[in-house]
Amino acid sequence: MSAIQQRTETALERLLPAATITPQRLHQAMRYAALGGGKRVRPLLSHAVGDICGAEAGRLDVVAAAIELIHIYSLVHDDLPCMDNDVLRRGKPTCHVQFDEATALLVGDALQSLAFKLLAEPELVTDSRRQLIMIGLLARASGSRGMAGGQAIDLAAVGCALTPEELEFMHIRKTGALIRAAVMLGAHCGSPLAEAELARLDHFAKLAGLLFQVVDDILDAEASTATLGKTAGKDAAQNKPTYVSLLGLVRAKEKAAGLRTAAHEGLAPFGEAAQRLHQLTDFIVDRSF
Amino acid sequence: MSAIQQRTETALERLLPAATITPQRLHQAMRYAALGGGKRVRPLLSHAVGDICGAEAGRLDVVAAAIELIHIYSLVHDDLPCMDNDVLRRGKPTCHVQFDEATALLVGDALQSLAFKLLAEPELVTDSRRQLIMIGLLARASGSRGMAGGQAIDLAAVGCALTPEELEFMHIRKTGALIRAAVMLGAHCGSPLAEAELARLDHFAKLAGLLFQVVDDILDAEASTATLGKTAGKDAAQNKPTYVSLLGLVRAKEKAAGLRTAAHEGLAPFGEAAQRLHQLTDFIVDRSF
Repeated sequence: MSAIQQRTETALERLLPAATITPQRLHQAMRYAALGGGKRVRPLLSHAVGDICGAEAGRLDVVAAAIELIHIYSLVHDDLPCMDNDVLRRGKPTCHVQFDEATALLVGDALQSLAFKLLAEPELVTDSRRQLIMIGLLARASGSRGMAGGQAIDLAAVGCALTPEELEFMHIRKTGALIRAAVMLGAHCGSPLAEAELARLDHFAKLAGLLFQVVDDILDAEASTATLGKTAGKDAAQNKPTYVSLLGLVRAKEKAAGLRTAAHEGLAPFGEAAQRLHQLTDFIVDRSF
Repeated sequence: MSAIQQRTETALERLLPAATITPQRLHQAMRYAALGGGKRVRPLLSHAVGDICGAEAGRLDVVAAAIELIHIYSLVHDDLPCMDNDVLRRGKPTCHVQFDEATALLVGDALQSLAFKLLAEPELVTDSRRQLIMIGLLARASGSRGMAGGQAIDLAAVGCALTPEELEFMHIRKTGALIRAAVMLGAHCGSPLAEAELARLDHFAKLAGLLFQVVDDILDAEASTATLGKTAGKDAAQNKPTYVSLLGLVRAKEKAAGLRTAAHEGLAPFGEAAQRLHQLTDFIVDRSF
């Protein structure tokens, strides 16, 4: 996994505009936000799916970088004062603290454009129609019915009593959509898979996305700011509904265990080729950061 | 022109998510920002270029809508308190005033995603490779070396003494890049054009983009808020360098006249097919709003 994390860092380093190119401050801020940290869960997923479809690592690097850029832009915007107003991210001052709010706003905007620029590069995959499908998947996962929509529901939920179903509806969009995109775009990088295989991967990705969120809520409740590299306990402080606040810690952990089992089971038909996806599923649960 | 403006409104109306779809408030705000106004200069340009390459109007509608969505997202973000902090746009309260800052931030983010979703629709144009070129063009025009980069340079320029060359460098990115994208994407919607014809259109688009900006600066200095539908005189109030502040009103008008002539001359080889582009060039100058 650390090899893939390193590959992702190297790819982002190469694909982001150099800090010497005008406008320098914007490019510095984009690199500040994107480089030097992060678990790179989405790139890990894309690369792991590559084992199943026999995708080239170099191609997966670009696709994984595009998805990670969307993720990073969402963090930069999410940390802004008008959203979560957070000052710490990946153990460093957030982008608007290190630079300024206007720059952070533009950083997010430009990272989103860059993600689509990367996916539109000629010959990224051999079949252009497939490449268009990938772009469409990422655009839908990012937009008002995906990640951005999930954040809007999250905002509206502050201080509200959600049902577990409503909470799930939000998370399927806020974090789940991009995790699914990471899996499905990886699956489109290699030999074409059968519809049934794609559906199986999509189902796995949905479970993995929810698992990721449940564990995130547990960590937010249990871990320290130093361990997380971001402000701990902020969900409770902001009166945000979480799996922990809704179910309590014990049942949230049971839910995580159930999702983990289901995710492993969903991968069974892929046999040995899914080994890295199995490992990642465990990593999502066992990470302490 | 009003027929194209109406077509654009209808296309946006159809292509934006319905306000009844969850998250409703976000979708309401996206529609509020995008519908019911605007000169639709970029869609007018795309449609006018369609005459030169024989493009289907229905195809141009989608492409023009995608470009207009990028333009609208940039206005929504530009109006935010951390940027221009403006309260009036197209004669209505700006998006963050009508809704709230967090919603306006997400509106911009989601409009950008939607633009790329529209351009990735299967069979938008018959040749998928060409469609990828169009997506790449729009992504570059929007990003850190295009529109978002121009806004970053603009921010850094507040209170600075720019040379006319530096001002032009900024505007080529801030407004010019998207205007060029409007022309070039329109040109990719019909029969393939020769490289020389594409280069000629790109040159025209560059001139038209600068002309648009010079006239904008003149209007900002001369017109009233009621006529503009946005706050007048704000460049001077914010101590922003403009063509008027740098050259004075008389020389700014001379520059506009020179650009207008050059734009018309650049279109000459297209003959009758460029009639609407000629009209648009005049419209850019003679608009009083």
